Amino acid sequence: MTRAIFRAVPPIRFTIRFPNAATRVWIARGALASLGRETRRVTGATRVVLVTDTHVGPLYAARARRALRHAGIETDLVTVPAGERSKSIERLAGLWRRFDDAGLSRAVAVVALGGGVVGDLAGFAAATWLRGVPWIGVPTSLLAMVDSAVGGKTGIDLPSGKNLVGAFHQPSLVIVDPALLATLPARHRRAGLAEVVKMGFACDAPLFRVCERHAAALAVGNPAALATAITRALRVKTRIVSRDERDRGERTALNFGHTVGHAYETARGYRGVLHGEAVAVGMCVAARLSVRVAGLDPAALRRLERLLASLGLPRRLTGVRAIALERAMRHDKKRDARATRWVLTPRMGHASVPQPITTRLVRATLLDVGARI
Amino acid sequence: MTRAIFRAVPPIRFTIRFPNAATRVWIARGALASLGRETRRVTGATRVVLVTDTHVGPLYAARARRALRHAGIETDLVTVPAGERSKSIERLAGLWRRFDDAGLSRAVAVVALGGGVVGDLAGFAAATWLRGVPWIGVPTSLLAMVDSAVGGKTGIDLPSGKNLVGAFHQPSLVIVDPALLATLPARHRRAGLAEVVKMGFACDAPLFRVCERHAAALAVGNPAALATAITRALRVKTRIVSRDERDRGERTALNFGHTVGHAYETARGYRGVLHGEAVAVGMCVAARLSVRVAGLDPAALRRLERLLASLGLPRRLTGVRAIALERAMRHDKKRDARATRWVLTPRMGHASVPQPITTRLVRATLLDVGARI
Repeated sequence: MTRAIFRAVPPIRFTIRFPNAATRVWIARGALASLGRETRRVTGATRVVLVTDTHVGPLYAARARRALRHAGIETDLVTVPAGERSKSIERLAGLWRRFDDAGLSRAVAVVALGGGVVGDLAGFAAATWLRGVPWIGVPTSLLAMVDSAVGGKTGIDLPSGKNLVGAFHQPSLVIVDPALLATLPARHRRAGLAEVVKMGFACDAPLFRVCERHAAALAVGNPAALATAITRALRVKTRIVSRDERDRGERTALNFGHTVGHAYETARGYRGVLHGEAVAVGMCVAARLSVRVAGLDPAALRRLERLLASLGLPRRLTGVRAIALERAMRHDKKRDARATRWVLTPRMGHASVPQPITTRLVRATLLDVGARI
Repeated sequence: MTRAIFRAVPPIRFTIRFPNAATRVWIARGALASLGRETRRVTGATRVVLVTDTHVGPLYAARARRALRHAGIETDLVTVPAGERSKSIERLAGLWRRFDDAGLSRAVAVVALGGGVVGDLAGFAAATWLRGVPWIGVPTSLLAMVDSAVGGKTGIDLPSGKNLVGAFHQPSLVIVDPALLATLPARHRRAGLAEVVKMGFACDAPLFRVCERHAAALAVGNPAALATAITRALRVKTRIVSRDERDRGERTALNFGHTVGHAYETARGYRGVLHGEAVAVGMCVAARLSVRVAGLDPAALRRLERLLASLGLPRRLTGVRAIALERAMRHDKKRDARATRWVLTPRMGHASVPQPITTRLVRATLLDVGARI
């Protein structure tokens, strides 16, 4: 049975090394209880600002504070509204003010307890406070566990686009506690799986096959299946970001599906579509383009669509016009002076160097997957 | 005569190497005319956002744009109000919006044409736009030429303190054109000399002696004397920042005089006192403390005060209460959880590791140099 297959997922500890930084990663059920001890050990902090949001705070902030207090660490708690809209200049300035009120000096640290939004916002505030103080990620969503919590990309959005403002600032420590997924709504859990599928399809075919083989268990949130997927995805991500911290080469593969994904979120005003759902549809667009211009086997596209379907993820755009997506893509940060560049997959598990694609072909593909004229 | 002594100051080109970056420095009278060619050569940019202020823009923006245009580089001009108050969240957000309007992508660059405020603000905006785009410093004040333009410290102020928010982001290129000093008001020129004196007193006794020997020529703005001082100061700064980019060791020596200096500016609301003037007084405080607790020869303190006097720089605090300075120091970023730490000079040209000093001794010294009770 599925449970038997996945039973042995032991606690895992590893370190991601970068030219000027290192991230300790600690994956274990119940790891949240070690937050204080690990924070003390890695950063030496005796005081932290704990940043969370209105969804996660009521569930886990008290446990996080308790773990910190047991290690002799004082906590200032900052709770921001849940949702992408908190990645704003105003919230960033609010965090800076709170850091100032807390007397946050170079001797202390920031803890981000939440999903990708909290990590991006709190990590960027840490990157820019006193020109950089340490931060610790405690991802609570599957998406953050497998993707955004490691790699050091932090930032905020502008009204015209996501992540236009930000910094590379590696967390000193990332604590991945799969037990926290028990409270994650099923839809958010499925959305997180989209990033796992992405890492498989664009970077690591064995990971994609694991997802295919255990799609049913993943779809219903089997904890051991999730723990396996998280661990494998983090290994893939680690391999890539440690070789290309600043996103100038190999790491661009991780943007597979994100050109349309980000544009879809922007065009929808971040309403009604989760990031992972937008990436799922974005992958379908990128894979179709890959079939058309990069020689991807159409069978691979069909496998991708089938896997997304069995994970309960969307494959089609809804409620959006092609022209709105195109406008948003022009604002995407991967644009150069002339054209948006696309990460394509000549074959499964292998991404190409980002390349421009003709507006006409993009338009046709967007219409194919459901954009309105 | 002075002129003869300084005649031979040839154009100088060198590169400052950091673990992950490099800054080309180009010092020459008339170097502004090469801005376009050098920008193209170093960054490959074909489009820049040129950031300047309301004082410098009318004097030099047209020449800068012409130089850029001759190299085939398009320019978007952004002019911010002159003065420290432009290092604000609002101006930063305004620059981000302008970058967005200009379609500023990773293929282009930011040029900061102005003094320290413009460099800090534009450099920080460049550091955080798309997680870092290249920037070029064209310092127009003596203070920026000798100090802030190299080393990659960028940032903005909060109402409660200077440079609380920022990043390390090395400029790709710094163009130092001493001819631009012709339009710098004498008071600002003298204030810039305070940072040269600081580098001598805290890091390089030969530089201090050069300042002493040619104080009269420097005080009246002799161009050759200034060019010599700039070149020597930049060499000292280069040596220090290339060994300690992130300000964790040797580089803290450059904060000599800045603990009180920053607090003085804050307590005065950045009105009526220039940064260099505040640093001059701050050095007098730090040197007095050095005599009291670090074994500095009192004769060195007297030489410092005499040199500052002959350069027309203040040695005493005016219009400020000790308690206001102490409050501002507690907000200074060099504070740790317990106490402000001071850079002291056990002997001229040598700074100590920053250390706490008792409140009582600091208070007594502040009163000695003119703070009101």
